[in-house]
Amino acid sequence: MSRFWSGFVNELDPYVPGEQPKLANLTKLNTNENPYGPSPKVIEAIRMAASDRLRLYPDPTSAELRQAIADFYRIDAAWVFVGNGSDEVLGHVFNAFFRQEAPILFPDISYSFYPVYCQLYQISYDTVPLSHDFSINVDDYDRINGGIIFPNPNAPTGCLLALSEIERLLQNNTESVVVIDEAYIDFGGESAVSLVKDYPNLLIVQTMSKSRSLAGMRVGYAIGQADLIEGLIRVKDSFNSYPVDSLASAAGVAAMNDKAYFNETCQAVIDERNKVVAGLEELGFDVLPSAANFVFASHKQVDAVEIAAGLRKEGIIVRHFTKPRINQFLRISIGTAGENQQLLSVLDTLV
Amino acid sequence: MSRFWSGFVNELDPYVPGEQPKLANLTKLNTNENPYGPSPKVIEAIRMAASDRLRLYPDPTSAELRQAIADFYRIDAAWVFVGNGSDEVLGHVFNAFFRQEAPILFPDISYSFYPVYCQLYQISYDTVPLSHDFSINVDDYDRINGGIIFPNPNAPTGCLLALSEIERLLQNNTESVVVIDEAYIDFGGESAVSLVKDYPNLLIVQTMSKSRSLAGMRVGYAIGQADLIEGLIRVKDSFNSYPVDSLASAAGVAAMNDKAYFNETCQAVIDERNKVVAGLEELGFDVLPSAANFVFASHKQVDAVEIAAGLRKEGIIVRHFTKPRINQFLRISIGTAGENQQLLSVLDTLV
Repeated sequence: MSRFWSGFVNELDPYVPGEQPKLANLTKLNTNENPYGPSPKVIEAIRMAASDRLRLYPDPTSAELRQAIADFYRIDAAWVFVGNGSDEVLGHVFNAFFRQEAPILFPDISYSFYPVYCQLYQISYDTVPLSHDFSINVDDYDRINGGIIFPNPNAPTGCLLALSEIERLLQNNTESVVVIDEAYIDFGGESAVSLVKDYPNLLIVQTMSKSRSLAGMRVGYAIGQADLIEGLIRVKDSFNSYPVDSLASAAGVAAMNDKAYFNETCQAVIDERNKVVAGLEELGFDVLPSAANFVFASHKQVDAVEIAAGLRKEGIIVRHFTKPRINQFLRISIGTAGENQQLLSVLDTLV
Repeated sequence: MSRFWSGFVNELDPYVPGEQPKLANLTKLNTNENPYGPSPKVIEAIRMAASDRLRLYPDPTSAELRQAIADFYRIDAAWVFVGNGSDEVLGHVFNAFFRQEAPILFPDISYSFYPVYCQLYQISYDTVPLSHDFSINVDDYDRINGGIIFPNPNAPTGCLLALSEIERLLQNNTESVVVIDEAYIDFGGESAVSLVKDYPNLLIVQTMSKSRSLAGMRVGYAIGQADLIEGLIRVKDSFNSYPVDSLASAAGVAAMNDKAYFNETCQAVIDERNKVVAGLEELGFDVLPSAANFVFASHKQVDAVEIAAGLRKEGIIVRHFTKPRINQFLRISIGTAGENQQLLSVLDTLV
């Protein structure tokens, strides 16, 4: 703390991202990165854009990138907002929509950045407990609120909420913004983008970090009706005119356009996930039903911290959250076939 | 406006960046981009980093980039903060340090993003008039304040404040943070980084957009003693863990390391600026003394808007601000020798 800080800075309890170790020979199953690299067309687009033109500012409206995203979902580009990763997009979302009288609502077990944004923007919130099976019951959100947000599939559980349930939530909740954070939707869920045209208070947040293998490039986006997007643009243009750099834009356009590669790699992750789930169950783990590129698993006998330490000793990192209800779970990202095989083999020696 | 927006969003009056036209054959002298491209070593570093590894998140602490910046200035990396362009860095600076009881102070003619940040974070401010010759008089800042910020050289005037005057300001103002925004310092000024060790309330903000020709990559940084930097990190980690993407980091490291290219291109801009100033004066312009990569010039007879429109017709864009005191000035970025020659030739037909 420092006498020069604004008062609220002392109270902040910042988000702690998953470890990004420097050691090259670790098997990194801790931050839900895609085991496959980005499309070769993305790499090519970046190399083409790495030129003298980097001396120029990017387009502050990111028109080309927004159009590529709009084309993918067959919507209007005025319904698309882009930012420096979905974390930045979420930050602007909390600021632009959630500074309301009533508290916002999100699940007790969810993306741990949400309460941090609430601190940053002094937003009051109530957490809504997940059901016993870790699913979201939309009836629990049927109360006065300043906004609702949850990931679908939820993180770190991986559990998917059906689109019909999201629609039921929207029918019951018309007076505040509902944000569905679809970072993991492409690994087995159905996006709620199709509902945007019918619900002016629905905003979808997505990222290119997971299903498009571009965590290193920081491209996230939001989809909603034009007046929600305009609110985000107003906040963004009061903070940073050019959050998406020229190479991130080029990469994002190429990633949205290469649908074949996207479909192929998403399917490969899903296939691998099925194998990992079967392997874990065989080893005595309870695994929550996952529609994400990770699984959330708890061993029937062996302590989670002990398993994580044992894996680490063998060069495999997974993520553990010291949090009530989930402190016996490990979140394990789906790796390549070889990495997953290695994971299961080492686990076999630990449990 | 929308009923779903947080209340303050309606009141925002966002920053309007200089136009980024799509037309390739325009002579763009409106946003102070460097006429020379980034170092060839930067392009090479980007191409090397454009690999499968983009599937991984960047280092959230940007350790390598911060070290490269620290090495350049011969300071400790704990004194360096990096962000997605200096606009993002400035946003965090306003939030982390300027939310105080007393109003912050900045010049009446200055970077027009400052009042926008104040709106965003509900910070009260007073503007301090520049002297008649458009210089900053540090005695005018000798009053109770919640912080002080100005660019040096100032924008859009280009006028430089001597380092001894900045030190005098710091001697008189020890209780709030003083931010020197050095976006243009490398084109003829002396950085105040040398004062940081003696003044715990001094923060320097710089960018790679101008003197390092990387406007397209969005890399900005701040230099101050470790507890100021820690305040910025706390705010950043409550907003976006990874604001600097992997390619921006690689580009930034290479740019800081290639000192020869940096010195050579800065000198070339300075040499060209001298020619532009001489040419403008010959055409009847008053030109403020510039230590930046642009000049601020007013014609003795011909209206500024008329000149700007005439230049535009011939494919040259410059920037005009419709603001009291400066509405007869044009801000003209220094281009390549050819562009500057073209500018002077067209002006010759207009004035």
